[in-house]
Amino acid sequence: MTDVHLVLTTGEPAGIGPDIVIKIAELDLACEITLLADPELLDQRAQQLGSPIRCRESAQGALSFAKFKILRGHTLQAPVIPGRLDTHNAKSVHQSIQAAAQACLAGEYHAMVTAPVHKGIINDAGITFSGHTELIAQVCKIEQPVMMLANKQLRVALITTHLPLQAVPAAINAARIRRIIHTVNDDLQAKFAIESPRILVCGLNPHAGEDGHMGREEIDVISPCLDTLKQEGIRLTGPVPADTAFTPHMLANADVVVAMYHDQGLPVIKAQGFGEIVNITLGLPIIRTSVDHGTALDLAASGKANEGSLLAAIEQAKMMVNHAQ
Amino acid sequence: MTDVHLVLTTGEPAGIGPDIVIKIAELDLACEITLLADPELLDQRAQQLGSPIRCRESAQGALSFAKFKILRGHTLQAPVIPGRLDTHNAKSVHQSIQAAAQACLAGEYHAMVTAPVHKGIINDAGITFSGHTELIAQVCKIEQPVMMLANKQLRVALITTHLPLQAVPAAINAARIRRIIHTVNDDLQAKFAIESPRILVCGLNPHAGEDGHMGREEIDVISPCLDTLKQEGIRLTGPVPADTAFTPHMLANADVVVAMYHDQGLPVIKAQGFGEIVNITLGLPIIRTSVDHGTALDLAASGKANEGSLLAAIEQAKMMVNHAQ
Repeated sequence: MTDVHLVLTTGEPAGIGPDIVIKIAELDLACEITLLADPELLDQRAQQLGSPIRCRESAQGALSFAKFKILRGHTLQAPVIPGRLDTHNAKSVHQSIQAAAQACLAGEYHAMVTAPVHKGIINDAGITFSGHTELIAQVCKIEQPVMMLANKQLRVALITTHLPLQAVPAAINAARIRRIIHTVNDDLQAKFAIESPRILVCGLNPHAGEDGHMGREEIDVISPCLDTLKQEGIRLTGPVPADTAFTPHMLANADVVVAMYHDQGLPVIKAQGFGEIVNITLGLPIIRTSVDHGTALDLAASGKANEGSLLAAIEQAKMMVNHAQ
Repeated sequence: MTDVHLVLTTGEPAGIGPDIVIKIAELDLACEITLLADPELLDQRAQQLGSPIRCRESAQGALSFAKFKILRGHTLQAPVIPGRLDTHNAKSVHQSIQAAAQACLAGEYHAMVTAPVHKGIINDAGITFSGHTELIAQVCKIEQPVMMLANKQLRVALITTHLPLQAVPAAINAARIRRIIHTVNDDLQAKFAIESPRILVCGLNPHAGEDGHMGREEIDVISPCLDTLKQEGIRLTGPVPADTAFTPHMLANADVVVAMYHDQGLPVIKAQGFGEIVNITLGLPIIRTSVDHGTALDLAASGKANEGSLLAAIEQAKMMVNHAQ
């Protein structure tokens, strides 16, 4: 096991990204972390938060912020007012995500961890941006990454993610289910050291369609697809009614629950407490974890931002790096 | 406060309904309970379970089973083999539900509590039956009752219930939302003694549509409807993203969460443990609670059936009766 070296993006500068980074900067995280951040922003936010930490430059010209290294070249275009979005800084935020992914691909870091960005302001700045995950996948030349949320008790992966509910049934097809379940299976083996992952798959309809009485997608699409995957040796159970899948009894025999859509799976894991949840992107040639929360503009510089999800994202990334080695 | 008198139907005789009734027959439940059940079935199942309880007849000819009274007239047509459904007994099961509802309407009991039935076998017997709730509503001449699940921490009411996912978006309209939220508000006041219920309403789409980026139902239908309801004095919050609505922080300020559909709300409450959950029908002129589980045919007469949900359903009914008086 080598020393783990992570790259961390601070995300939207007007949000709580800088706050939570500053909050953990003096902790011993048992890994090396390089920040892609504007040193001036860090100093300013630290001051606003009443933190004594400031950026330092070594005799050799290396920048650091408490235990973190700072990579030069990620300065912002405009001064940051906490809570106030500014299109002028969107390009820098966008570039830091790309730079982190490229550096991971090049082997400079073992994994990347991301703080939250604000989709709206990046698009307002004229940059087409549908999300972190999609941008990182594009840098990695991967068509369809898989979104998985995890806390210490539960992992939930999604077949579809950010679609209007109306568009979900048409998006459920055998090719998509196959690809995603294979990705989940492969990555739980490779990056989570689970030899033969036990995968619990929800149906699309209530009661998993109840033998066709409440929707036919289970009979026509999902069950035949899962049967094939089982024959290929994947340890699957399903389709299971979603209101059965997450019961303690079922979870005791599962390493991951695959939900068909966003609000079938995420409310359950988020009901268990926001702070400890990590958003993990599977199916990439690099390791990437993220906080599970947004920019919380109203909390920026208030001192009230909770660093729990960032710490969990770092721990998760370290764990995945160690398993992948 | 008068002594509470409940009527309890034992449901499908080949399932665990009789088992869980027998399991609680000797407990002091601090209320009077009349069973609509076949005395022979109870004696037989008690014997199979190794229980010494048997039906007794008083000098005046009144039947009882431990602490429960038994109402005559609900004998089955065919002998019961645990785990084996029989169409011959479906009519009696169906009639006992109607009889219980009619007796509650007539004021003979304060509330009815139901053990699980098997929809399929009742339909196979030639009786059109879409569920307990619908049959009871029909007896009460109520068009659209509201399904609410509750445990000690959480109440979840549904705008739509047993629909294929594909049919959900079209079923979400202002009239339905209005009627259901009014029913929830009225019943939480009248039967739960909550003076001004705090109602948290989920959006239909992920992130509640994210300002129209992921579906327009929130903008076109849900928000205008909720605004009107707020103006009418109902203490509403929403539409809230479902993966935010169930977080501890949000639930701390809510008496009930209204979910737009089955798998948006029920997986969350069922993830907290099946045993303690009660299914409550709102919007009826009578009080009705039910277990939240099915007939569990494979567990009938095994002694493994869990009586927790039945006990919770009885407690919930008693509480509602006391609040309604």
